[in-house]
Amino acid sequence: MDFSSKLLENAVYEISQLPGIGKRTALRMALHLLKQPKEITQSLVKALDEFRENIVFCKKCHNLSDNNICEICLNSKRNASQICVVEDVRDVMAIENTNQFQGLYHVLNGIISPIDGIGPQDLTISSLVEKVKEGAVNEVIFALSASMEGDTTIFYIHRQLSSFNILISTIARGIPVGDELEYTDEVTLGRSILKRIPYEGSIADL
Amino acid sequence: MDFSSKLLENAVYEISQLPGIGKRTALRMALHLLKQPKEITQSLVKALDEFRENIVFCKKCHNLSDNNICEICLNSKRNASQICVVEDVRDVMAIENTNQFQGLYHVLNGIISPIDGIGPQDLTISSLVEKVKEGAVNEVIFALSASMEGDTTIFYIHRQLSSFNILISTIARGIPVGDELEYTDEVTLGRSILKRIPYEGSIADL
Repeated sequence: MDFSSKLLENAVYEISQLPGIGKRTALRMALHLLKQPKEITQSLVKALDEFRENIVFCKKCHNLSDNNICEICLNSKRNASQICVVEDVRDVMAIENTNQFQGLYHVLNGIISPIDGIGPQDLTISSLVEKVKEGAVNEVIFALSASMEGDTTIFYIHRQLSSFNILISTIARGIPVGDELEYTDEVTLGRSILKRIPYEGSIADL
Repeated sequence: MDFSSKLLENAVYEISQLPGIGKRTALRMALHLLKQPKEITQSLVKALDEFRENIVFCKKCHNLSDNNICEICLNSKRNASQICVVEDVRDVMAIENTNQFQGLYHVLNGIISPIDGIGPQDLTISSLVEKVKEGAVNEVIFALSASMEGDTTIFYIHRQLSSFNILISTIARGIPVGDELEYTDEVTLGRSILKRIPYEGSIADL
């Protein structure tokens, strides 16, 4: 692209470094900012700057946090004996949105993926083992992707935790609520038959 | 979405104000910036800030420019007697990329569009008329979208310029190079027959 302005060219280049943004979309965004009052760009710039400079990882659960210890870990109403292990902050947000979990989290900041060069030492596994060793944890729930990488990660961590007298579980895999059997893939359907659950005569069991 | 961090929430909100960006994409971008070195965010922030604060419109052609007069208007090799009228800076870039135009531009910064509340007074039409009145212009070429709005704008400006002794033209409308007749829409094909051009036995005419 042939820019008549160095300032515009720079802005477009920097925006297009973001994931999923090409030069054309970046140009559209820059021209959009130009049409808006200067305050819009100023508050975008301020929010990005403060976010990148000041955000930290919670010292306890490794979730993104404004302070050394995140709000979830600080909340005394939550059950500190249950730890839900997730890949990243997006999964924490997804589970929090369900309002079904009252324990604490442990964010791995990735999953074991040899193809991406991510090994166990790149994750926060040792800090999870330490936490369990301290003795206040009764249950570790794995909420990782149902993929090869997720399963490998669960297997690896499970071996490190197996010597402790705690419950280890994974979230249920099966047919999503509302889905029809006909369109469910074979692996999921097969597993959902193998891992069938007792029906005790209540709608809530389904 | 339930953010555990105010800083993250703010950054995601501000990014999602950009056109075509939802909350989920904004979150992906914020987490991407977090994984990169701080310098990446710093240079993005710097480029956006400098762009929005310092960019101006060229006093002559109203194109985006780093200085009061843009590089194209300052270039003495260009033919100042030909003015190409375009909607915005993207069209200047598109035409510059063709290397087929050596005149100057006049950027309207929009086209007449009653549905969007854009009337002639919102565009830089009077400055174009002034430029023509000064007498150095021989030809005005309209390079606007082939839409109702584009045609209305051309019609409006043409009436203002018709008293001057200059050539007024529009870019050719027809079948894009490489396209097949079969798939061309009827309006374009019909117009390309009505506005047929003499063939003078050279490949370059086609």
